[in-house]
Amino acid sequence: MASRTLAELAAVVGGAVQGDPAREITGINGLAEAQPGEIVFFNNPKYRDQLAATRASAVVIEESAASLLGGRDAIVAANAYLAFAKISSVFHPRPVFAPGVDPRALVEPGAEVDASATVMAFCYVGRGARIGPRAVLMPSVFVGEGARIEADALVYPQVVVREGCTVGERAILQPGVVLGGDGFGFAFDASKPEHYKIPQAGTVEVQADVEIGANSAVDRATLGKTVIGRGSKLDNLVQVGHNVQVGPLCILCGQVGIAGSSQLGQGVVCGGQVGIANHVKVADGTKVAAQSGIKNSIEESGQQLMGSPTMPMGDYARAMLAFQKGAETLKLVRRLEKKVAELEAKLASLEGGQK
Amino acid sequence: MASRTLAELAAVVGGAVQGDPAREITGINGLAEAQPGEIVFFNNPKYRDQLAATRASAVVIEESAASLLGGRDAIVAANAYLAFAKISSVFHPRPVFAPGVDPRALVEPGAEVDASATVMAFCYVGRGARIGPRAVLMPSVFVGEGARIEADALVYPQVVVREGCTVGERAILQPGVVLGGDGFGFAFDASKPEHYKIPQAGTVEVQADVEIGANSAVDRATLGKTVIGRGSKLDNLVQVGHNVQVGPLCILCGQVGIAGSSQLGQGVVCGGQVGIANHVKVADGTKVAAQSGIKNSIEESGQQLMGSPTMPMGDYARAMLAFQKGAETLKLVRRLEKKVAELEAKLASLEGGQK
Amino acid sequence: MASRTLAELAAVVGGAVQGDPAREITGINGLAEAQPGEIVFFNNPKYRDQLAATRASAVVIEESAASLLGGRDAIVAANAYLAFAKISSVFHPRPVFAPGVDPRALVEPGAEVDASATVMAFCYVGRGARIGPRAVLMPSVFVGEGARIEADALVYPQVVVREGCTVGERAILQPGVVLGGDGFGFAFDASKPEHYKIPQAGTVEVQADVEIGANSAVDRATLGKTVIGRGSKLDNLVQVGHNVQVGPLCILCGQVGIAGSSQLGQGVVCGGQVGIANHVKVADGTKVAAQSGIKNSIEESGQQLMGSPTMPMGDYARAMLAFQKGAETLKLVRRLEKKVAELEAKLASLEGGQK
Repeated sequence: MASRTLAELAAVVGGAVQGDPAREITGINGLAEAQPGEIVFFNNPKYRDQLAATRASAVVIEESAASLLGGRDAIVAANAYLAFAKISSVFHPRPVFAPGVDPRALVEPGAEVDASATVMAFCYVGRGARIGPRAVLMPSVFVGEGARIEADALVYPQVVVREGCTVGERAILQPGVVLGGDGFGFAFDASKPEHYKIPQAGTVEVQADVEIGANSAVDRATLGKTVIGRGSKLDNLVQVGHNVQVGPLCILCGQVGIAGSSQLGQGVVCGGQVGIANHVKVADGTKVAAQSGIKNSIEESGQQLMGSPTMPMGDYARAMLAFQKGAETLKLVRRLEKKVAELEAKLASLEGGQK
Repeated sequence: MASRTLAELAAVVGGAVQGDPAREITGINGLAEAQPGEIVFFNNPKYRDQLAATRASAVVIEESAASLLGGRDAIVAANAYLAFAKISSVFHPRPVFAPGVDPRALVEPGAEVDASATVMAFCYVGRGARIGPRAVLMPSVFVGEGARIEADALVYPQVVVREGCTVGERAILQPGVVLGGDGFGFAFDASKPEHYKIPQAGTVEVQADVEIGANSAVDRATLGKTVIGRGSKLDNLVQVGHNVQVGPLCILCGQVGIAGSSQLGQGVVCGGQVGIANHVKVADGTKVAAQSGIKNSIEESGQQLMGSPTMPMGDYARAMLAFQKGAETLKLVRRLEKKVAELEAKLASLEGGQK
Repeated sequence: MASRTLAELAAVVGGAVQGDPAREITGINGLAEAQPGEIVFFNNPKYRDQLAATRASAVVIEESAASLLGGRDAIVAANAYLAFAKISSVFHPRPVFAPGVDPRALVEPGAEVDASATVMAFCYVGRGARIGPRAVLMPSVFVGEGARIEADALVYPQVVVREGCTVGERAILQPGVVLGGDGFGFAFDASKPEHYKIPQAGTVEVQADVEIGANSAVDRATLGKTVIGRGSKLDNLVQVGHNVQVGPLCILCGQVGIAGSSQLGQGVVCGGQVGIANHVKVADGTKVAAQSGIKNSIEESGQQLMGSPTMPMGDYARAMLAFQKGAETLKLVRRLEKKVAELEAKLASLEGGQK
C-alpha cells in the first residue's frame, strides 16, 4: 500500500489542507490506536482529549472543530465522516480478482460469463444465467437458471441466487445470502388436512449499489418480483418476505424481518430486530427504533417511531416511563381508592350529622 | 407452458365452470396485473373495483361472491384461495431434474443413491447415507454419514443435513437450511472455569411434506431426536433447539425461535419473531401474534395469544391501550392524589368545625 | 462403542462409586428412556418417580439426593450435571477424521495445511492461510487469504472464514457460520444521494474453545478486530456486529443480536432474541432474559435484567404485572376521578351549608 500526500487525499475528498500538503500519509486509524504516519478522524468533542494525545500525523475534521487541532496537519472537509470513509477507500481498495472461470466451477451450457468476470472454484452457473463485466463470484456461489449478475457485482462465498433473480451493478452480497427462496405461502386444505403450497413463480430484483449482509434471505415473489431498491443496505440475518418492496436507500439493521407484500419508501431506517407486518406501507424517511414492530401502515413521512406497535418516539418514551413506574402507580391508585372510600364514608356521616 | 381450458382447470380443483368451459387460459395473475387469457382470484369484496376493471379472461371465485362476476367466465369453488393455488400449480409445476449423480459430486462408498434421484455438482453424500427415489440435491448440498433423504424430497443449494438426520418424503429444504447442528448444551465447570460441551448425540427427523425456509436451523437432539412433524411449514431464519417437537401442521413465520425441549401441538401458528422458552408445551391450534414470547406452557387449545409473556389477544389489546395512555394516566393519578389530599384536609377542618 | 465399568466412569468424573464398581455400563440415556445397561442422571427431586421407575443400571447423582437411590448402583459426584456430561463424552467421543487434503479441495499456493489436518472435498483455502494440527474442515468450507484455523478446531460444512480471520484452538464452528463478513458501516452522502461504504479493513478473532452455532454471523472490524473471547458459546443465528468484544465465557442464546462496538464482559449470559445496542458495555456476569433489549451500558456486575430497555428482573416482573392489569387500573382510576369530583362537589355544598 503506497503512501499518499495530504494534498492527494484532500483532493479525493474535496477538502482543504491545513498545514503541510506534502505530509506523507501511510494509512488510517482510530485516535487512540494511530501511529505516526497515519491519519485519523475527529468529529465528536467528547473525544477532544484523545485528539490532543493522538500520535497520528494528520486529522480529518470539520471547520467547526478545527480550532481543536492545536497546530496539527489536517484535511478540513464539509462532512468529516464521509471524507474519512473515502480516504479509507484509498488505503483499502476493493480487492482485485483475476478474471476467468476456475476449471473447478461448473458453468452450464447456455450461460454467459463475461470475459472480465471472475468465477471461482465450486461455483455453479445455471443455463441462461449471465455474469456481467468484472462481476466476481467467490467460491461455492450458486447462480440459478436465467439469473443475472450485473457488472461489478461482488458475490461472496456460499451465496445462493436462485433461478431468474437479478443482482444489480456494483451490488455486494456477503457470504451465505439467499436470494429467491420460495415465499412463504400456503392455502389450508381442511379436507386432507394440509397446508397446500402456493407456487412462488416470481423473482427477486436486487438493484444497483445494494449491499446485503451475511446469511440474510430475500424471498422470491409469488407473482411479479420482490425488489430491494437502489442503494439500500441490509445487514446480517435480515428476512425479506415475498413481494416486498424496499427502498431505495433504506437501511435495515441486523435481524430485521419484513413480512410479505409490505412496501418501504425511500430512506427508511430500521434498527436491529425490527419487525414489519405484511401488507403495510412505510412512508419515506421513517426511522424505526430497534426491536420495534410496525403493525399498520405509516402514512406520514419522516417520523421517528418506537414500540410494538409503534408510537412516535417521544410518546413511546413517556409511556415506557409510566410502564416502569407501573407497580408503584398501582399501589398509589389502591391507596387512593381506600382514601376515597374513607372520605365518602366520612362525608356521608357528616351529611347525616347536618341533617 | 401449454394453455388449459376452463373446464380442465375446474376439474383440477373440483369446481364448477360458469360461462364458457372451452375458454383457453394461459396463466394466472393478480386482478390488477392480469392480461387477456389469464385467470385471477377474487375473494375479498374490498377489491370489487379491481374485479370490475380486470383484463383477465376468467375468475376463481366462491359461490357467495359470484354475483359480482358481471358476466365473466369463472370457476366457482368452495375455497377459492385453495383452488387458485392448485391452478397456479398447473401453470407452475415443480421443475423436473435429470436423474443421476454429477461427476463433480462426491458420493462416499457405502452411500446409496436411487437411480431416479438427482445429485448435482459439489454435493457431498456421506457413508451409509441414502438418497431416495426422485429426491433432488441441488449443488453444494451436504448429506452426512447415515443421513436419509426420502423420496421426492427437494433440497436446494448449500443445505446441510448432518449425520444421522432424516428428511421425509416430499419435504422441501430451501437454500442454506442446516439440520442437525449441535444442540446448545453446556455444563459449567467452575473449577476451570469452562462451559463443558454436552455431546449432542441425537438426530433430527423432518417428516413428510415439511418445508423449511432459507437459512433456518434445526438442532439435533442431545439424546433421541428433534422432530418437525408432518406437513409443518417453517419460514426463513427460524431457530429450533434440541429435542423440540413441532407439529404436525404448524406454521412458524420468519425468525421464530424455539428453545430446547419445547413441544408444539398440531396446527400451532407463530407470527414472525415469536420466541418460545425451553421445556414448555403449546396446545394444539394455538395462534401466537408476531414478536410475542411464550414463557410458560399453554394448556388450553385454540387460543389467540399476544405479548411477552403472552396473554389472550383481547386482554393484551386492552393492556396495550392502557400502556399507550400510561403517561396521561400517571398525570391523572397524581392530580387525583393531590385532590384527595385537599379533600382530606378540608374534611378534617370541617369535622373540626363541627366538633 | 465398548462398555465401561462404573469404576472407570467414576474415575473419569472424579466421583465415588456406590454399589458395584464392576457394573458394565453401555451408554447413557434419560430416566424415562433408559434400558438396562445404561446410566442416567438425576438432580431434580421433581422426577423422583421417574427415578424409582427407571430401568437404568446406574445413576449419576449428588450426595444430597443419594438417599433417593433405593439401592441402585450410582456414581456420586459433586456436580452431577457436569459428571453426566463427561460420561456422555466417553460414550460419544468427537468423531475421528482421516488426515489429508481431499483432491477435490482447492488449496491455493502459499497456504499451509498441517499434515495431521483434514480438508475435505470442495473446501477452498486461500493464499497464506494456515490450517493447524488436527484441525478439520468439513466439505465446502471457505477459508480466505491469510486466515488461520488453529489446532484441533472443528469446522462444519458450508462455513465461511473470510480473509485474515482467526479461529482458535479447539473452537467449533457449526454449519453455515460466517466469520468476517463486512461490518455494517456507511457514511451518507446527501449530494448523490448514497450510503457510501466504509471499508471494513479489520478482522475477526475467535479465541480458543469458542463454539458458534449454525448460520450465525460475526462481522469483521472496521479497523482492528472483532473478538469472541475464550470459551464463549454462541447459539444459532446469532449476529455480532463489527468491533464487538464478547467474553470470555459468555453464553449467547439463539438469535441474539449485538450491534457494533459493544463490549460484553466475562460470563455474560443472554437469553434468546436479546438485542444489545451499539457502543455499550455490559458488566461481567450480567444475565439478560430472553427478548430483552439493552440500550445503555450496564455498569454493575452480576445483575439479572429483563425488558426493553432492561430493568432489574424483580422490578420488571412487578412492572409487567401492573401492565397486565393496566386496563382495569385505568377503569379504576376513572371511577376514582368521578368519585373525587362528586366528593368535591358535596364538600363544596357542605362548606356552603356551614357558612
